[in-house]
Amino acid sequence: MAKIQKPSIASGMRDFSAGEVYAREYIFNIIRGVYRKYGFQPLETPVMETLNVLTGKYGEEGDRLLFKVLNTGSYLKDIDVEVLSSKDYKKITPSLSEKGLRYDLTVPLARYVAMNSGNLVFPFKRYQIDKVWRADRPQKGRYREFYQCDGDVIGSYSMMYDAECILIFDEVLSSLDLPGFTIKINNRKILSGLAETWGFADKFGQFAIAIDKLDKIGENGVVQELGSRGFTETQIHQIQHMFRLEGSIDDKLSTLDTWFANSETGKKGIAELREVLEYLKAAPPKKAILELDLKLARGLDYYTSTIFEVVLNAVQIGSIASGGRYDELTAGFGLPNMPGVGISFGAERIYDVLKQLDKLPETTGSGVQALILNNGADKAKAGFILLAKLRAENIPAEMYPSEDKVGKQFTYAEKKGMPYVITMEEGNTVTLKNIQSGEKQSIEADKLIDILKQ
Amino acid sequence: MAKIQKPSIASGMRDFSAGEVYAREYIFNIIRGVYRKYGFQPLETPVMETLNVLTGKYGEEGDRLLFKVLNTGSYLKDIDVEVLSSKDYKKITPSLSEKGLRYDLTVPLARYVAMNSGNLVFPFKRYQIDKVWRADRPQKGRYREFYQCDGDVIGSYSMMYDAECILIFDEVLSSLDLPGFTIKINNRKILSGLAETWGFADKFGQFAIAIDKLDKIGENGVVQELGSRGFTETQIHQIQHMFRLEGSIDDKLSTLDTWFANSETGKKGIAELREVLEYLKAAPPKKAILELDLKLARGLDYYTSTIFEVVLNAVQIGSIASGGRYDELTAGFGLPNMPGVGISFGAERIYDVLKQLDKLPETTGSGVQALILNNGADKAKAGFILLAKLRAENIPAEMYPSEDKVGKQFTYAEKKGMPYVITMEEGNTVTLKNIQSGEKQSIEADKLIDILKQ
Repeated sequence: MAKIQKPSIASGMRDFSAGEVYAREYIFNIIRGVYRKYGFQPLETPVMETLNVLTGKYGEEGDRLLFKVLNTGSYLKDIDVEVLSSKDYKKITPSLSEKGLRYDLTVPLARYVAMNSGNLVFPFKRYQIDKVWRADRPQKGRYREFYQCDGDVIGSYSMMYDAECILIFDEVLSSLDLPGFTIKINNRKILSGLAETWGFADKFGQFAIAIDKLDKIGENGVVQELGSRGFTETQIHQIQHMFRLEGSIDDKLSTLDTWFANSETGKKGIAELREVLEYLKAAPPKKAILELDLKLARGLDYYTSTIFEVVLNAVQIGSIASGGRYDELTAGFGLPNMPGVGISFGAERIYDVLKQLDKLPETTGSGVQALILNNGADKAKAGFILLAKLRAENIPAEMYPSEDKVGKQFTYAEKKGMPYVITMEEGNTVTLKNIQSGEKQSIEADKLIDILKQ
Repeated sequence: MAKIQKPSIASGMRDFSAGEVYAREYIFNIIRGVYRKYGFQPLETPVMETLNVLTGKYGEEGDRLLFKVLNTGSYLKDIDVEVLSSKDYKKITPSLSEKGLRYDLTVPLARYVAMNSGNLVFPFKRYQIDKVWRADRPQKGRYREFYQCDGDVIGSYSMMYDAECILIFDEVLSSLDLPGFTIKINNRKILSGLAETWGFADKFGQFAIAIDKLDKIGENGVVQELGSRGFTETQIHQIQHMFRLEGSIDDKLSTLDTWFANSETGKKGIAELREVLEYLKAAPPKKAILELDLKLARGLDYYTSTIFEVVLNAVQIGSIASGGRYDELTAGFGLPNMPGVGISFGAERIYDVLKQLDKLPETTGSGVQALILNNGADKAKAGFILLAKLRAENIPAEMYPSEDKVGKQFTYAEKKGMPYVITMEEGNTVTLKNIQSGEKQSIEADKLIDILKQ
């Protein structure tokens, strides 16, 4: 440590202090508990994956945002000077770097399932609550390191699991005591059916991307974008008509029935959705409003069926959870026909909302019950004996390490949120002081345990 | 996912399946619980740190073993082609890479304390149980990604905390039910005192490195190494004499008293050690053997006082926990006079020993209590209603997703370690079958809850 450096944290990264760790643990424990109750089991994949695994799974933008790890050793040895001076990154980077930090928890899951399919019990239900990294430009509320809380069921086409996803959303978000929320559901096959029916099946991707932006750029914006993409006026009117479809889920599905007379894909989408709803009629969500939102498209390509998004009714913060069903999780790794459905909770947004609404549990305290004050050598020895007794009774406690001024010792106890300080007196007697009330009592050390255990 | 790839995990990395996650959680929960009881609080630092923070802290070998993260964007733009073609890595790497993955949890702690010293309550007791990365050549038992379980007390010279470290070792390792273990203790100042007394203070580093190898290369090896480093025959004899020092800790300290008549450093080391022992006389470890091991040196440079190492008495696996006291944690970051003492549990070795001794808790079960068999549409609906009821009572349960052969459904329940399967019958009746005993009973659905809650 010869050179003195001004210490700084890497851009877009955060330290979580004790209070923040406790608050996150509270959220994660609730999510974890519900996943486990539904039969999901934990999986922990490594932070680094090979770039073979990661690249090409998230689109060009995603590839750009992967954190790549420099090869160890003589990492330039396989690269021509000519290639280096060309500064052609697409050629150079793969020679410099073979590994990257995971961008999400889904691709590592796919890699894991493909590698271990022979040993897994299917349907394979796993959850993972872990950090991911994206080399995005850091800004308020956007970090380069953040948590995802994923649950996926792999290896079944049953819509029962799609219904379970909705019940998991409902139970987790209710248990966290979030205010009123709506689970929006749609089915990609319904969107494909619309594209087929209205004659723009070739432009499905553009359609999905444009309607997904409705909340951001408004209806006029979407109309403009569709126009510039070559959608006809009739088609745009049809899409606008769809935007305005109102009524109950059953009403909307009845309308879709008439629209999809000639679209097998559309009919399949409706049938899948009705199956999910059948399960939910048997076991309805307790708090969530369930809404069929035909505008819901979800950006990511791999969804092929049910899609979900959860928003708060009265807090504008975007989606706090989402997910969907896919047909081919592991096809890119040589294992075709592996369908699944997965969801993810947005831990950062949930944390922000709960904090804003003051619904995080009290996290200022360290859990330590008492500080034994240090008033000099002999008493300190007796204090250390008492400390060991308290800890043997599983009472979190500390002794102040040196004979500092009493005020300083008190401040330490207060700042760590301890309810009591203890002064060693003569013989077996101690003075117990309640910091908040100021109340003092002189008692025998043995009685202390009963009081502090409460 | 156009191109099909054979999926593989990055070299030196591991996936942890559910059983392994549960077993690790069991170990971590015990360590975490003891740290909290002693007043330590969690801190979570990011996985990536700037290379400014990381480099130069672990010696040349350590710098080489840092995983470095490639800068995003046009990372070659600031490098001359000439420098590139020189392949002078010491010049090139800092231009390509500004961040790395943390190598341990101590340097990030130092960075955090230096950045936040104004807001922390001192003595600052923090623990962190988290992954670290080293670009070592992977081999049996050595991974590139592994857990460390660190606890440190920053900002106090009090030997009370050194005594607490020993009590934490004792409580954690006893709670894990590890077989007999010995906590070896020494003090760097005692080693310095020996070097002063015997006239090789200038070769202290070589002395420390050589004696630290005693277990690996034997006494003859150490003697040879000292000889080749220019230690005199008399000095080597004195060191061998020290190796052979036997008896109780008090006996050894008495001998050292006579040796250190003229070494202030040596006297200080003895005084510190006696202070630690005073605390431990007041509150002795319950299971550990405590041993003063004058050969204990610990490789890392920053220890300046107490050093610890814990080994199992009957299992040859090296140290399972270690630590020590340092005077200048944050000096390299511009904050001098910040002493501290810290320890770390070797989670990998502890896991290996507990596994070998069959002392990890039963981890085959998923915790799911029952599988509701799927025997077709109507009953499946009733099954899903029952499933929701069980879960509402916090009973982990699943329903099989489709009407597969009963044998296949049973296998699913067995492989997930569920004790029961449930068959929906007419009306409100179900058949509950205990998988292990084969015992069946026909009961009302409502009574199920009492049975499964047990």
